[in-house]
Amino acid sequence: MSDFKGYTGKSLEFLKKNNINVGDFVKISSDITYSGIIMPRYEHSDDKHLALKLKSGYNIGLELEKIEKIEKIQSKEKKSEAKENFEKDPSLPKILLLSTGGTIASKVDYRTGAVTPVLTAEELNSSVPELAEIANVDAEVLFSEYSENITPDHWLKIAEKLDKHSKSDYSGIIIAHGTDTMHYTSSFLSFALSGYPIPIALVGSQRSSDRASSDAALNLIGAVRFLLECNTNGVFVVMHQDENDEAIACHFGTRVRKNHTSKRGAFQTVGGDPAFIVVNDTVYRNNTKEFFKEKTYQPKINLKTNVALVKYHPGYDPELFEKILDMNYQVIIFEGTGLGHVGKTMYDKIQKAHEMGIFLGMTSQCIDGRVRMTVYESGRDLMNLGIIPLEDMIPEVALVKAMWAAGNYDNKEIKKVMLQEIASELSN
Amino acid sequence: MSDFKGYTGKSLEFLKKNNINVGDFVKISSDITYSGIIMPRYEHSDDKHLALKLKSGYNIGLELEKIEKIEKIQSKEKKSEAKENFEKDPSLPKILLLSTGGTIASKVDYRTGAVTPVLTAEELNSSVPELAEIANVDAEVLFSEYSENITPDHWLKIAEKLDKHSKSDYSGIIIAHGTDTMHYTSSFLSFALSGYPIPIALVGSQRSSDRASSDAALNLIGAVRFLLECNTNGVFVVMHQDENDEAIACHFGTRVRKNHTSKRGAFQTVGGDPAFIVVNDTVYRNNTKEFFKEKTYQPKINLKTNVALVKYHPGYDPELFEKILDMNYQVIIFEGTGLGHVGKTMYDKIQKAHEMGIFLGMTSQCIDGRVRMTVYESGRDLMNLGIIPLEDMIPEVALVKAMWAAGNYDNKEIKKVMLQEIASELSN
Repeated sequence: MSDFKGYTGKSLEFLKKNNINVGDFVKISSDITYSGIIMPRYEHSDDKHLALKLKSGYNIGLELEKIEKIEKIQSKEKKSEAKENFEKDPSLPKILLLSTGGTIASKVDYRTGAVTPVLTAEELNSSVPELAEIANVDAEVLFSEYSENITPDHWLKIAEKLDKHSKSDYSGIIIAHGTDTMHYTSSFLSFALSGYPIPIALVGSQRSSDRASSDAALNLIGAVRFLLECNTNGVFVVMHQDENDEAIACHFGTRVRKNHTSKRGAFQTVGGDPAFIVVNDTVYRNNTKEFFKEKTYQPKINLKTNVALVKYHPGYDPELFEKILDMNYQVIIFEGTGLGHVGKTMYDKIQKAHEMGIFLGMTSQCIDGRVRMTVYESGRDLMNLGIIPLEDMIPEVALVKAMWAAGNYDNKEIKKVMLQEIASELSN
Repeated sequence: MSDFKGYTGKSLEFLKKNNINVGDFVKISSDITYSGIIMPRYEHSDDKHLALKLKSGYNIGLELEKIEKIEKIQSKEKKSEAKENFEKDPSLPKILLLSTGGTIASKVDYRTGAVTPVLTAEELNSSVPELAEIANVDAEVLFSEYSENITPDHWLKIAEKLDKHSKSDYSGIIIAHGTDTMHYTSSFLSFALSGYPIPIALVGSQRSSDRASSDAALNLIGAVRFLLECNTNGVFVVMHQDENDEAIACHFGTRVRKNHTSKRGAFQTVGGDPAFIVVNDTVYRNNTKEFFKEKTYQPKINLKTNVALVKYHPGYDPELFEKILDMNYQVIIFEGTGLGHVGKTMYDKIQKAHEMGIFLGMTSQCIDGRVRMTVYESGRDLMNLGIIPLEDMIPEVALVKAMWAAGNYDNKEIKKVMLQEIASELSN
């Protein structure tokens, strides 16, 4: 059966002339020689390129005019049969894939060049046929949101869903998630699902799944390999290590940050190496630390959002801080300067906040490194005013932890909980 | 004349026995062999160590008990005579050193282990005798503040002082400054003193000048070499490149950030290499870009602080944004997620802010990379609501530029000025 899905005009003609179908494994001589599977194209694609998925999982676009020769090595039918047999192998481990939206579950609208979320979890799964060779993947759409629109309510939904699967026979769970706020979500799951027995990997992509340069497939394949071979539990963010396609980094979900707007290796473990790296199908462990402090599963799936993040800067208006105090927040997390400072102009208001019973935690806008408030007069002054240094907790993680702590503990317990390591949010 | 300044007990006895004075150049056999100058110690230092300044400019502490042998290579008197002659050399270029405070101008209180700002600019200058061999340094204290207490008023004072020296015969100007907010100050000076003809280096240290491990001397020496040999103008932050003492990095003052709370190489050029590096007395230029867009000096030394920085995060309360609107700010700079997004829950308030005539600029909390608001629906929605993407301007720099723009331009000119490159705040 012929399949030229998405190909039109010249590219359709080219495929027909060479008796090549979408899904065929081919060898193409162009500037260099490429081998891979012809991929479908989407509505409104141009007719000047073929999309080819290389063995590495990387998709490329090949310009028709530069193709000197194309040879079919194996037809789609044969590969499908092989896969069918493979998929039924009951000895393969089970993976659950929950989709929440984001670029990894979206495709480019070629009319506008814009990206819209349309792929279902099943489509996502089936778009990466390599997955079926290493695991039986059950896919489910939880919701479909770009991650800038993910709210703490979404965090709760994901956590509740995971809680229901805590005693399942899945070897690992993948959460497909937009990258913008993935590290906020991973932080919440880390605290809410302390001790969760099955390893969890949040996976995203910086380019949508149907684009030639998408990192989605490699990130998903890397995540499955990681989940199957890590021999531990925890909440991880699994993404490209850098711009090349050789290494997939698996970061502790509470020590990671999106540190670049667009490049593939946007996620970095702050102040250290990723906990695990997947290179050429092999999973390497960099870090012997266990992710969760407690071994038993103790879910605490509540939160309160009456928490503010205050990034101090020269010229910060104490009157603005007064406005925040009007909001009756329970916790204020400061992103101070350097080792954990804010200017003297803020002292009066901070004292007032402390007297109001608000928990005041200090992190650093340097992002990397530890706050140390005993070194300078300013730090000691601020501690005297009631600010609690939060070690080397990343500001965004401290914010999420505070929301979680406020939802699960009494006000008087918050200080203890904020300083107590739960899910590798502090590095030693 | 004997000089054992700061040495007491065993260490004093050791120096006397070996006929060694503070300032002598010595060779010490310990675990390895060290050569350098015996440095004074401060009140309440212990009596178990000698402080030695190595040729690299690095100070170390040597444990008395481990010293096998000490030899005097050159006495202080001889060195001083040589230096006296050198200092009078009228052919040496002139450098102005303005001190504003910070760790570089502070010392450790050994009673408490805390750091207090006590060194004057003259003391700072004379504590680094190497400077006199390459330049005639005029030193002046502008004020003495830790940089967390530096306010926009201090920025104005520094800029006004520099403005007075714009036609002077100084080959370069050093601003000794605390590191916490050094990149905010360098940004303001970059915009306010567009085209300033003399190169300016902001220099700080991560360890106070009297500590054995201080980076102050090397940073100062590196800055003087840079100023004398850079053959350009601009505002630079000059600090250790990394943990070793071989390279001093000279960053564009609008592309730099303190990215670590404590380590020597805390400052990094965002998304690229430092513009210049000083290695072993040689100044290397990495970047052919001229710092200022305009060649002529056009000072604009005003600012307004009615500008807010809003770091968006999941759970950000739109009501808090409403409170910010109550403050009647002229500009709001967003630190959005990823390519420049905030959640849909904020749309109504953003529209309101736009209708109020507030300039709304978008940067990314990723810090590195460019905002691109045309890729996703969210970005396009936000642009339709009136938010202006600020390319790859660092959030803190955008904030300072906005304060400066608000102080020097009409409201209707702010958009144009914010998008117009002035001092390398945008990378190409």
